[in-house]
Amino acid sequence: MDFSDFNITVVGLGLIGGSLAMAINKRIKPKHLWGIDIDIEALQQAKTLGIINEGFTDSALPLQESDLVFICLYPKATMDFLKKNMFNFKSGAIVTDVVGLKESLIQEISSFLREDIDFIGGHPMAGNEFKGFKFASDKIFEGADYIITPLPKNNRNNISVLKEFILEMGFANLVEMTPEEHDYMVAFTSHLPHIIALALVSNPIIEKNNICTGNSFRDATRVAKINGDLWAELLLGNGHNLARHLEIFQSNLEKIKKAILNGDAAYLRELFTRACRYKEILDDKGSPVV
Amino acid sequence: MDFSDFNITVVGLGLIGGSLAMAINKRIKPKHLWGIDIDIEALQQAKTLGIINEGFTDSALPLQESDLVFICLYPKATMDFLKKNMFNFKSGAIVTDVVGLKESLIQEISSFLREDIDFIGGHPMAGNEFKGFKFASDKIFEGADYIITPLPKNNRNNISVLKEFILEMGFANLVEMTPEEHDYMVAFTSHLPHIIALALVSNPIIEKNNICTGNSFRDATRVAKINGDLWAELLLGNGHNLARHLEIFQSNLEKIKKAILNGDAAYLRELFTRACRYKEILDDKGSPVV
Repeated sequence: MDFSDFNITVVGLGLIGGSLAMAINKRIKPKHLWGIDIDIEALQQAKTLGIINEGFTDSALPLQESDLVFICLYPKATMDFLKKNMFNFKSGAIVTDVVGLKESLIQEISSFLREDIDFIGGHPMAGNEFKGFKFASDKIFEGADYIITPLPKNNRNNISVLKEFILEMGFANLVEMTPEEHDYMVAFTSHLPHIIALALVSNPIIEKNNICTGNSFRDATRVAKINGDLWAELLLGNGHNLARHLEIFQSNLEKIKKAILNGDAAYLRELFTRACRYKEILDDKGSPVV
Repeated sequence: MDFSDFNITVVGLGLIGGSLAMAINKRIKPKHLWGIDIDIEALQQAKTLGIINEGFTDSALPLQESDLVFICLYPKATMDFLKKNMFNFKSGAIVTDVVGLKESLIQEISSFLREDIDFIGGHPMAGNEFKGFKFASDKIFEGADYIITPLPKNNRNNISVLKEFILEMGFANLVEMTPEEHDYMVAFTSHLPHIIALALVSNPIIEKNNICTGNSFRDATRVAKINGDLWAELLLGNGHNLARHLEIFQSNLEKIKKAILNGDAAYLRELFTRACRYKEILDDKGSPVV
């Protein structure tokens, strides 16, 4: 598809927004790519590097001319930005976000969205334990999934445009699901592993004893150095789904502990076999391109 | 140090033994490097690749001439091998192992060890989720720690020889601790992350739903495809230590779950700050070279 007539704005040139801007600049070549941020330095850097055509701290001007807008802010900031700028968007614009929680956000947005704006929720399943434009790189999208959570009221043509755009940015898979399905899934595949890393690393042995770690420990705790502002919002916003998966995990742990203390080798073998099967399903499961 | 007069035998050319043999061949250049295995194919492959000088399925011959022996077998097999071959070792030989549990093993070995053999327990903190010679590579030792657990009765000169040998093989750090300290530590840094991976992946959502995973999930479950023969022995052999760390982890999880369900942002901030501090200690803590 040809996007050479598109004006595109990325709001928030942090890790995700900066990386998306790099991918758009490198692979899409739109008419204009603009950046909005409160951080003048990030805007200047992105312009100097030739990633964006122009940077703005005042949103009105670029939004009025933009056909496609990626809002790459934290959950609450995304909502605030949309509310504040609702009357700045170009009529007919496709607007999307990157927030890792969809149900409540999309419900709230629906309550004040202009009828001539098509908001389609999105979530690139990429990122790492760092934050800010200086860690941005379009390489973080290689092999990654991008989820979109359209509603029945979204324009089908706009959904297709967004899908093609995402795949052209270099994501491996594009997956469509409902906001509810999304939040239930990420509670398991993203929020739970972060909680595990936090709980694992919170052991005083780390201060007191001599510790040698292997790869299993380093991998399991990589994300323990968390971006607290973002994660407090995500975890508190998904408590109900998270509790459901946490309880399955806690129950598994308790069974394993009992088996080990009782010398129950048969249970462990059964556990290894089941875990191995689930791991293979996960490794084989190429997310369907929809 | 010069090891050109040393005959060395590696018993068991699996992932660890094969990788050690590669490191010895590449970096040490002893007088002879021999391999013992029941798998003739692994022996032939190691000889064809020029890694060992000769392979043996019968242990007596190489052991009688070896100054340094690495036993790279599973815990029970290590014990069986030592018992069966106790009278095959050369007088004065340094014998070491790679078992990830030390206290009970070393106690039992002490009960039947010949007085003219110096057994020094060892544990290279390296490995991955694969097994067998075909996955062996001395690259797995880059940046890795090697723990030894000598006893007061071990010959100090032999301990120094073994330490120098290990560092020359390319390990980043050599750490000395008691067998008890070792088992308490690995319960936390190795056995617990493996249990977590097993418990995390054992969720029926994996079969039933469409799953997109990010890096945090992939890292946390990498070791879920476990080598069951080895891990049943390790987990059951370290139940007491493992239960202590599991309980700290379980208690942390429960507190996090309550905070999330109660909307307790203050607790989450405190948790993030503590986890971040512990993670920094871990990242900074270069294991001391002793």
